[in-house]
Amino acid sequence: MDNKNNIVLAQINTISGDVEYNKNKIIEHIKLAKEKKASLIVFPELCLLSYPMGDILGRYPSVAKKCLLALDEIKEYCDNISALVGYPEINNNKTGKPFYNSIALIQNKKITKIIRKSLLPNYQEHNDYRYFEPYRVDVESRIFELNGIKYGVIVCEDAWNDFEFFERNLYETDPVAIIAPKVDVILCCASSCTRAKKEQLKHNMMKTAARKYKVKYLYVNQVGAQDEIVYDGLSRMYNEEGNVCAMAKSYEEENYLLDLNSKTNPINPLPEGLELTLNSQKEFSLDHGPDLERTYKTIVLAIKDYFSKNGFKKAILGLSGGLDSTICAVLLADALGCQNVLGVSMPSKLTSNESKTDASILAHNLGINFIEIPIKDMHDLMADKFKNIFNNIEKKWDSRYTSSYTQDNIQARSRAMILWGIANEFERALPIATSDKSELYMGYATINGDMSGGYAPICDVVKTKLFALAKWMNEKRPIKNAIPKSIINKPPGAELAINPKTGKALLAEDALMPYEFLDEVIWRIENFNQSINDMMKIEFLYEKKNNVDKKVKIQWLEKFFKRLNAALYKWYIIPPGPIIDARSINKAEFRQPIISNIDYK
Amino acid sequence: MDNKNNIVLAQINTISGDVEYNKNKIIEHIKLAKEKKASLIVFPELCLLSYPMGDILGRYPSVAKKCLLALDEIKEYCDNISALVGYPEINNNKTGKPFYNSIALIQNKKITKIIRKSLLPNYQEHNDYRYFEPYRVDVESRIFELNGIKYGVIVCEDAWNDFEFFERNLYETDPVAIIAPKVDVILCCASSCTRAKKEQLKHNMMKTAARKYKVKYLYVNQVGAQDEIVYDGLSRMYNEEGNVCAMAKSYEEENYLLDLNSKTNPINPLPEGLELTLNSQKEFSLDHGPDLERTYKTIVLAIKDYFSKNGFKKAILGLSGGLDSTICAVLLADALGCQNVLGVSMPSKLTSNESKTDASILAHNLGINFIEIPIKDMHDLMADKFKNIFNNIEKKWDSRYTSSYTQDNIQARSRAMILWGIANEFERALPIATSDKSELYMGYATINGDMSGGYAPICDVVKTKLFALAKWMNEKRPIKNAIPKSIINKPPGAELAINPKTGKALLAEDALMPYEFLDEVIWRIENFNQSINDMMKIEFLYEKKNNVDKKVKIQWLEKFFKRLNAALYKWYIIPPGPIIDARSINKAEFRQPIISNIDYK
Repeated sequence: MDNKNNIVLAQINTISGDVEYNKNKIIEHIKLAKEKKASLIVFPELCLLSYPMGDILGRYPSVAKKCLLALDEIKEYCDNISALVGYPEINNNKTGKPFYNSIALIQNKKITKIIRKSLLPNYQEHNDYRYFEPYRVDVESRIFELNGIKYGVIVCEDAWNDFEFFERNLYETDPVAIIAPKVDVILCCASSCTRAKKEQLKHNMMKTAARKYKVKYLYVNQVGAQDEIVYDGLSRMYNEEGNVCAMAKSYEEENYLLDLNSKTNPINPLPEGLELTLNSQKEFSLDHGPDLERTYKTIVLAIKDYFSKNGFKKAILGLSGGLDSTICAVLLADALGCQNVLGVSMPSKLTSNESKTDASILAHNLGINFIEIPIKDMHDLMADKFKNIFNNIEKKWDSRYTSSYTQDNIQARSRAMILWGIANEFERALPIATSDKSELYMGYATINGDMSGGYAPICDVVKTKLFALAKWMNEKRPIKNAIPKSIINKPPGAELAINPKTGKALLAEDALMPYEFLDEVIWRIENFNQSINDMMKIEFLYEKKNNVDKKVKIQWLEKFFKRLNAALYKWYIIPPGPIIDARSINKAEFRQPIISNIDYK
Repeated sequence: MDNKNNIVLAQINTISGDVEYNKNKIIEHIKLAKEKKASLIVFPELCLLSYPMGDILGRYPSVAKKCLLALDEIKEYCDNISALVGYPEINNNKTGKPFYNSIALIQNKKITKIIRKSLLPNYQEHNDYRYFEPYRVDVESRIFELNGIKYGVIVCEDAWNDFEFFERNLYETDPVAIIAPKVDVILCCASSCTRAKKEQLKHNMMKTAARKYKVKYLYVNQVGAQDEIVYDGLSRMYNEEGNVCAMAKSYEEENYLLDLNSKTNPINPLPEGLELTLNSQKEFSLDHGPDLERTYKTIVLAIKDYFSKNGFKKAILGLSGGLDSTICAVLLADALGCQNVLGVSMPSKLTSNESKTDASILAHNLGINFIEIPIKDMHDLMADKFKNIFNNIEKKWDSRYTSSYTQDNIQARSRAMILWGIANEFERALPIATSDKSELYMGYATINGDMSGGYAPICDVVKTKLFALAKWMNEKRPIKNAIPKSIINKPPGAELAINPKTGKALLAEDALMPYEFLDEVIWRIENFNQSINDMMKIEFLYEKKNNVDKKVKIQWLEKFFKRLNAALYKWYIIPPGPIIDARSINKAEFRQPIISNIDYK
């Protein structure tokens, strides 16, 4: 290996606002890189502060000052190595936002250049423009020479404005078009979270740029989870032909050494399935296969980091024998270790024996802790108590429903009460909200009941994908078939009420609509912003397989949006959970005023 | 009155995304203005869509198209009158954000000019830059002549960048400086929410501009509440000397007619106390007097609009006999009518007789519905049930706390269970979360307990202000002294636990710190972003009155930030409630990652 071509991509897992922790991590990676005789180490965007930053810069101005002091310390370790370190730079001008999103180039213990980000994203989870001032594309500061190689630096969003690649561009200038023709190597410092179809887009964009400008294109990404946002790592290099010739691991920290000219840099795999879809178009499919490993790894890391970074150790969840709680239990066991998970079966009189058995078999297979706590006594007490209360109130208010969800919700809330009680009694224990995305869209979840918890692992995963994920986990996990087949085969239902037509427990699809249809509606809204009229013009997959009257279809669509509108106040209090899809209803990226009245036609 | 000088300021209350509703309201106000023979009617910024817009434009693109169709309809009513109507204009360029924040000037049934907003706010509750492209200050489009008078149009934030008035400027250009010297009258279309000290700042800014450029300065503001944000109206005119010579009502819709040259336009009063403080400096005071009427009116309108715009009619709340629930009950009664409020007293064994009596007297004085539901049975059942559960779990997990909040929380959660049960059973009924700002900062509230509800009226009001508000309401409401004095005089406490030292119910100040101190810490963070070190250098009001050891002070400050940090996951699920203070922790404007580790020193 030729020393001067050795570069370390420091794919690190940082903590928002924890300058001390992040600084130490940066120094540790610089030391490692020096041991490896690298000539250059590149860190992710804003690594001293970490993303997401929320309002930390605005509310705690001393944090930015601490970043400067930390940079001073870091400098001292940069002998015999150059480093690119991201930080929030204070804007001393009398106009403009208070900070720049900057990268310091450190050489011989000195900051020799400061590169300031030009394009500031302000969509989805991004809020750069809230605190950062955009800076013109300053060629002088962005280019440096090292060992005869010319490098050009871009910062994350700076890469996302090619006028040929994108149909529509958010910004007037393309920093890559200005910098790339003048250099041998592009270095892109990024903090780019994972999402459905984003790897595909990102890969094609970088590949295209490398080829177009005949440059080597290096990309360093943050890794790790923070609340809702999960960074997948996968830092890499493209050669001048646009081929991937180096790839760091996914979902793991790494001090990744590469040789600019070597053909044998390690190329770690993308999550299974993603490679197959690198060139596919965006279309709806019920075959979730190509996205399952990514989904699994994203959620496992999300849980792991949420717990460890916040000081939680143990998770408590209700095990109903249904799909949602089952999936959560597996993911929790894999993220936290089975000894740190407690599954609680809380049967009511509507709980079938099968559900109880399934829950207990699952717990046994996973090796997690398990207890059964019947809630009949709580339900009886409350039902009885409410009878008197309601009769009393009825004398004052004549607006009593003829049929209500009160009885159903008593069960869900009794269960949450037990879980939170346990969490209050045992150190560092957190209850888990098991609601899935399909049901949250429909408001099919109980406030202070199943919606409640400290973290919501599957709040951005639709039901049909959860079924696929269950099968995938049964196949891929070291312990095969941990999930009983009966859980995967039975139709979803909360077992909170009886369907008067069948005399059996009400199924979710009776209350809502077929999940295959429901999930396609969600997908069409999130990926194409389609209205009811748009969707009436398209044949859904479900329609291709089943005979659906147009009248029924429009009824389902209208029901969907009516329920969505009524669910907005529930969305406001969904606990945090990882973003998985191309778009989500997670608060980090979507807000619809509760007071809003949209004509969804 | 000379017809050509007659202008209507259309201070309207719109609904986010409800284009049909907003359009009809606009047409109705144009008709009214024509009846009044006005030559010009001016609407608030973006009135066809309404603020706040959240992600409506991104998620439902048909809404912007519907705004265009609505504008077409509105045009037809604009004969014999000119109108300025705000709407989201689609940006047809291939670069830039997808919309402009525009104002259409309609004359003789045609759109004769389109004014595009130049300065796009992206701080606090503002997210303009998420969807809007800023436009250069286009003099041509912004100026028009009518009846020999030259008008110049600016849009809300366009007014907020005077280089002399502000110490620091967010933007490079000042539209007012460019437009005002060329015109006789400035027309400012705004959607400017109320906040502590904002009226004072806004008034001085507009007054200064009117005087500096020797123009008449007209300001039209939205009115009404949407989720967390309350617009106070108070549209107005300043003359060339910078004096207010016309002022619409506060917190009410109005079709306000003024004559540009008249000295007898109605001048409605500011909320009581605000006028006194127009020129005062920002400093902490425990005399909340000058802000109480504004606070009261803001919350009452917030509740009223939240309920009516969302289709809710009835409010249910627990009445503990404590200050928070008391204040909420009064505000709800005034907003919704006493017959639509149900106060529920839910005593446990820790509830004093005094608390029970106070709650019932309060309900009687207010004329609201009242029932008492003891929760001893629920508490006994749960306590008993938990005993077995915990002993069982203890065999698996050795991490049981020696003392815990479990018992306290059973009470709070039992109460919430009752309130939500009632809400499930009676049409359009919503439970109310009664947590106050001081306690939310400290995480001194129970998840699925008192923190839970559909709306949180006082989530942005600190405790010392609530005491002042109670006294103020007792004095100012038509029915005097509705709040029993004993509620105001007793020290706050949740009556959930016994203080082992006193043998009596634990007081909040024992668990936290003196409220007078606590509220000053909050104020210093929110107004000056102060750190622990900053605050150690300042003498607090509480210190001036009491002997506080520096060691105790730093303990309190450290405790404050430790509790704040641990409360972040609770903040994530605080229900919506109105923004009152200069800064708040409401989600519309503040986000600190739950995973964040700040050195608050």
